[in-house]
Amino acid sequence: MKSDLKPNVVGIDIGGTNTVFGIVDQKGNVLASNSIKTQAYKELDDYMNALCDGIAQLVKDNCGMDKIQGIGVGAPNANFYSGNIEYAANLPWKGIVPFAKMMSEKLGVPVALTNDANAAAIGEMTYGAARGVKDFIMITLGTGVGSGVVANGQLIYGHDGFAGELGHVIVRRENGRPCGCGNKGCLETYTSATGVARTAREFLEKRANEDSLLRKIPADQITSKDVFDAAKAGDQIAKDIFAFTGQILGEALADFIKFSSPKIIVLFGGLAKSGDLLMVPLKKAMEENLMPIFRNKVNVVFSEMKDADAAVLGASALGWDAK
Amino acid sequence: MKSDLKPNVVGIDIGGTNTVFGIVDQKGNVLASNSIKTQAYKELDDYMNALCDGIAQLVKDNCGMDKIQGIGVGAPNANFYSGNIEYAANLPWKGIVPFAKMMSEKLGVPVALTNDANAAAIGEMTYGAARGVKDFIMITLGTGVGSGVVANGQLIYGHDGFAGELGHVIVRRENGRPCGCGNKGCLETYTSATGVARTAREFLEKRANEDSLLRKIPADQITSKDVFDAAKAGDQIAKDIFAFTGQILGEALADFIKFSSPKIIVLFGGLAKSGDLLMVPLKKAMEENLMPIFRNKVNVVFSEMKDADAAVLGASALGWDAK
Repeated sequence: MKSDLKPNVVGIDIGGTNTVFGIVDQKGNVLASNSIKTQAYKELDDYMNALCDGIAQLVKDNCGMDKIQGIGVGAPNANFYSGNIEYAANLPWKGIVPFAKMMSEKLGVPVALTNDANAAAIGEMTYGAARGVKDFIMITLGTGVGSGVVANGQLIYGHDGFAGELGHVIVRRENGRPCGCGNKGCLETYTSATGVARTAREFLEKRANEDSLLRKIPADQITSKDVFDAAKAGDQIAKDIFAFTGQILGEALADFIKFSSPKIIVLFGGLAKSGDLLMVPLKKAMEENLMPIFRNKVNVVFSEMKDADAAVLGASALGWDAK
Repeated sequence: MKSDLKPNVVGIDIGGTNTVFGIVDQKGNVLASNSIKTQAYKELDDYMNALCDGIAQLVKDNCGMDKIQGIGVGAPNANFYSGNIEYAANLPWKGIVPFAKMMSEKLGVPVALTNDANAAAIGEMTYGAARGVKDFIMITLGTGVGSGVVANGQLIYGHDGFAGELGHVIVRRENGRPCGCGNKGCLETYTSATGVARTAREFLEKRANEDSLLRKIPADQITSKDVFDAAKAGDQIAKDIFAFTGQILGEALADFIKFSSPKIIVLFGGLAKSGDLLMVPLKKAMEENLMPIFRNKVNVVFSEMKDADAAVLGASALGWDAK
């Protein structure tokens, strides 16, 4: 298929809880995978040793390191240009971590890294819903909201590697919700899984006289999954929470379209399992906020990638070009 | 300098009032220029004949058509991919005009076109403040607000050629000003020259008991230039109008930075002559609305190009690659 390349790559997805890694072939099959607990290693060196040992063993058991073209890593606050992970709030090691350099020295294979949303975009472009699409936007709806923007067939990294922080575009300037980034009214505070839970607490308080399945759960323990289940069971407040979430996301997507005029927008992550509960109000708000030249042209789709594999696959795709 | 190219190109800037065209050499010197009145020709064929005759004459008098590499055109609603001008509200010819095809058939030279803000971005990248910069955003502050986004050294056209409509990003979702595009609260309704005049009328009405130099002018005739002159003379309401305009633009630029993380943002057009009156509140609001990773990194600058030449120069730069 690509005869000048070695047959496989390794993809690594570094999350706050788990670090998952796998061997991927040129067709996008995950041949083997394993994981370690990210938080089990307070010292960076211990983590790096454990991760590299795990990869070396997995590769040895399957194809041998001489069959590995490169390693691609998706991690929060990872910088494609520098190969560093910089000030990641949810990882145990502080400051600037020269991740790519450390790992490639240990394993003798080139390593490239990028943030998790960019990795998802590359995965989607290589194996998913955006195959062959030169202009698209990837939005990850998880604990936070991340994004990867592809234009002219290339991921936009920006001058410093930090482009695509659309989760922190400000969508409510008045009385916006406080965000972990220090600003108020960021998209992420409304349309992440935690944003949906926040909306649930707000709606339940505001509509105190109205019954809801969600009242059976202690308010501070409500998750977006609970809201989804309640909405599916016909709960009006839960349905309104999705309508509100979809509207805010749709308004934001309309503005993103005015920036890069993508052919498709791919939604990925926990909330992307909400189906029409999210998609119907989202599309309505998006179209209403577009100028005529953009209307009814942009496809919003849910990711086609299987969750379990997606992060590793996305990261691995970066390994083909690692230098 | 570029030895495989012919020595000159022609640049054309099509505005609602004038169509200016000029011959430009490889160093960005405008060797000769002329113009026709855009509105004097109600029929497209008459306009095209007059424009092509004017260009042919100018080229004949200066270098000869065999020295022209190509023609670049900047026009409202021009589509780079199709070579068409589509539904331009301020031009006399309606519907879809196959401009590039018509002109190249008449003159025997390749013609490329793009919208006026993209042309300005290409000019800035080739001859202006963005020389050598691979990631920047051009914002034109004229009658409307236009934009051109450059990432990875390439202009972003989007899947359909309509990327970069940042003037229509919605900056006020509640009680936003009605915009010509059909939406409410678009950036253009606040930070264009006409937006500033609108703000002036609003402020004068709201602060009816406060004296202002602007009260000497009939409210419906106030221009952004009047507001500038009054602010320079120390008028408080006029200064507040610029503070308001700068704040809204700064907030919007912060969101744009989260998209493509540009190294610089170039402001161009009438309002870009406002100097610190606009720039000081703009930078303050921009930095306040950025996350730490972006703070104090992005330069906002006024265009270095001379107004009279800028539009023609920008458009002409497109001519080098016309096919």
